[in-house]
Amino acid sequence: MRIGLDVMGGDRGPEEVIAGALEACALLEADDRVVLVGDQAVIEDKLSQAGGENRKIEIHHAPDVIGMAESPVDALRTKPKSSIALLASLHKSGELNACISAGNTGACVAAAQMRLGRLAGVHRPGIAIVAPTTAGPVAICDVGANVNCRPLHLYQYGVMTSLYIKAVTDIETPRVALLSVGEEEGKGNELVRKTAELMKADSFLNFIGNVEGRDLVSGACDVMVCEGFVGNVVLKLVEGIGEGLMRGLMKKFAAAMPDQMERIMQIAAGMREQYDFNMYGGAPLLGVAGIWIICHGASSSVGIANAIREAKAFSAHKVNQHIIEQLSESRD
Amino acid sequence: MRIGLDVMGGDRGPEEVIAGALEACALLEADDRVVLVGDQAVIEDKLSQAGGENRKIEIHHAPDVIGMAESPVDALRTKPKSSIALLASLHKSGELNACISAGNTGACVAAAQMRLGRLAGVHRPGIAIVAPTTAGPVAICDVGANVNCRPLHLYQYGVMTSLYIKAVTDIETPRVALLSVGEEEGKGNELVRKTAELMKADSFLNFIGNVEGRDLVSGACDVMVCEGFVGNVVLKLVEGIGEGLMRGLMKKFAAAMPDQMERIMQIAAGMREQYDFNMYGGAPLLGVAGIWIICHGASSSVGIANAIREAKAFSAHKVNQHIIEQLSESRD
Repeated sequence: MRIGLDVMGGDRGPEEVIAGALEACALLEADDRVVLVGDQAVIEDKLSQAGGENRKIEIHHAPDVIGMAESPVDALRTKPKSSIALLASLHKSGELNACISAGNTGACVAAAQMRLGRLAGVHRPGIAIVAPTTAGPVAICDVGANVNCRPLHLYQYGVMTSLYIKAVTDIETPRVALLSVGEEEGKGNELVRKTAELMKADSFLNFIGNVEGRDLVSGACDVMVCEGFVGNVVLKLVEGIGEGLMRGLMKKFAAAMPDQMERIMQIAAGMREQYDFNMYGGAPLLGVAGIWIICHGASSSVGIANAIREAKAFSAHKVNQHIIEQLSESRD
Repeated sequence: MRIGLDVMGGDRGPEEVIAGALEACALLEADDRVVLVGDQAVIEDKLSQAGGENRKIEIHHAPDVIGMAESPVDALRTKPKSSIALLASLHKSGELNACISAGNTGACVAAAQMRLGRLAGVHRPGIAIVAPTTAGPVAICDVGANVNCRPLHLYQYGVMTSLYIKAVTDIETPRVALLSVGEEEGKGNELVRKTAELMKADSFLNFIGNVEGRDLVSGACDVMVCEGFVGNVVLKLVEGIGEGLMRGLMKKFAAAMPDQMERIMQIAAGMREQYDFNMYGGAPLLGVAGIWIICHGASSSVGIANAIREAKAFSAHKVNQHIIEQLSESRD
C-alpha cells in the first residue's frame, strides 16, 4: 500500500518525521511505499543526511505548509498546495491509500472530511486515541474532531471505536462506556442520556453504561465515548498531570535521596516510556472514506513509525468495511 | 457564627465528620457554634466516644438521610427531614449562617438553590474547587452544579471565583482563563467563544484567554472556568490519574529498589499529603444566597475541619457581598 506522510507537520521538524519513515521501512512489505509529502529540497537534504535513498520511500513536493495555529478551513482554501491539502487530494485520487500527519489537527480533520468524505452511514468522523493507562490501554473517542456532538454521533463513535479496537487489539468484545458526571443512569447532561438510550438499544455494542473521569485509569472500560470538547480536555489534562506529577516527585526524591537518583531516574524513565503516547503511534480519524492517522505534534520517530504500522493494520483488518457493514446492520 | 454540619454525609461515616467538628472547635471563636445535623442518637453516641461534650457543639436531630445515589430533587421532596434538607431550612430561617456537607452533591446544590435562592444578579450557582497542583493552587468553576451552561453563567463563574480567590488567598488579581480545546482565539465551541467575548468586555476580570487541559498544572492561570460537565470530568480524572500513577510507580520501585522502599514510601506519602484535597476543605457553592461548602465524599476529619474554617473565612471576607456588588457594577 502507499502511505502518505506529512513531512512538514510535527513540532520536532522534518528530520524526525523522515527518521520515522526510515525506521518503518524495515517492517513494510516489498511493494509498500511511504510517500513523503513536503518541501522537496528539504526532504532530499534530510534524506541524504539520514543515509541516502530507500526504495520504499518516494517524495511528493508540497510547496506550502499549514501552521499549527492557522484556522483549518481558511488555510485549506488558501493553501491547496500545502502538505495536508495535497495528502487529502492524493488519497482521494487513489495515489495514496492512507495519510499520516503530526501537523494541524483541525486541518487534517477538515481536509479528510471535505476531500475524502464520510463512510456510508457515518454522520461525523471522530478521532479515536488509545491512551496507555496504568490499568491498560483505553480508547477514547472523540478527542477533538467534533465539538458539536449529537447523540447519534456519540453512538456511532461507540460502534466505530469498538470495531477499531476489535481489529487492532486482542480484545474480542470491547466494553464501551459513556463518559459522564456520575455512574448512575439519569445523571449527566441530555447528550449523555440520549446517547445511552441509543447505545443500550444496539445489541452489537457491549455497552456497560456511564463512567466517570477516574475510570479512565480504573480498568472499567476499553472504549470511552465522549464529545470532542471533553475528550480533548481529557487528553491534554492526562498529559499535563502525568508530566507535572513526575516532575514534582522527582524534585522531592532529588532533595531527600540524592544518593539514589540514578536508579530512581531510570525507573521514572521506564514509567515515562510505558505511558508514552508514541507507543501507540497515532489516532485514526474514524468515519472518513479513507485512512487518516493523526499523530501527536510532539511525535518522535518511534511515534511516526508506529503510525505507519497502524495505517497498515487499519487497512489489513478492513476497519472501514466493518464500520460500513455494522452501521448498515444497526439501521436495519 | 453558626455553622451547620451534615453528620450523615461522607463515605467515612459520622465519627469522621464529628471528629472534624471537634478538631475545628479549638480554632473557632467563643461564640461560634458547630451544629451537627443528623441522627441524634448516633451523634450523641459518637460524641461521647470522642471524649464527650464541647460547648461549641450543638445537635439538631434529622431523622432521615439522602443517599449518595438518590435523585436529588426527588429525595429532597420525599425527605424534608433529611440532614441536607434541614440544613437548607435552618440556613434559610437564620438559625444557621453556613452549611457544610460531604453528602450527595446534587442534593446540596438543589437544596441550596431551592431553599436559599440565588444572590441578586446571579443566574446559576457554580461549585468552585481549589485544586492543589504542582504549579500551585488553581480554582476550577464549575465542577458539577450546572451541566447546561450558557455564556452568561460561565462569565459569572469567572467573576465569582475571582472574588472568592481574592478573598481567601493572597492573590490580588487572579488570572482567569477559559478551559478550551486550543489556546488560539476562535478555537473551542460556541459556548467558549461567546463566553470569551463577555469576559473580555468586563475590565474587572483579569481574563487571560483560553487554556487547554494541560494548563491546570502549568501555572498559567489562577482560575479556570468551564461548564459543570467538563469540570466534573476534570476533577474526577485528576484524582484518578494521580492515584493510578503513584500506584504504578510504587510498584516499579518496590520491584527494583526493595531496599529503599521505606524512604520512597515516606516521600510518596509527603507528595500525597501535599496534593490531598483535604487540605482545601471543601468547595463553596458560589452564587447562592448563603454559605454552602460541599466536601468531598471521602473527606477526612482534617477535610471537615478545614471546611469549617473555610466557611468562617467566606463569611469574614464577605464574599457574597462582593459578588452582589461586582455583578451589579458589571451590569451598569
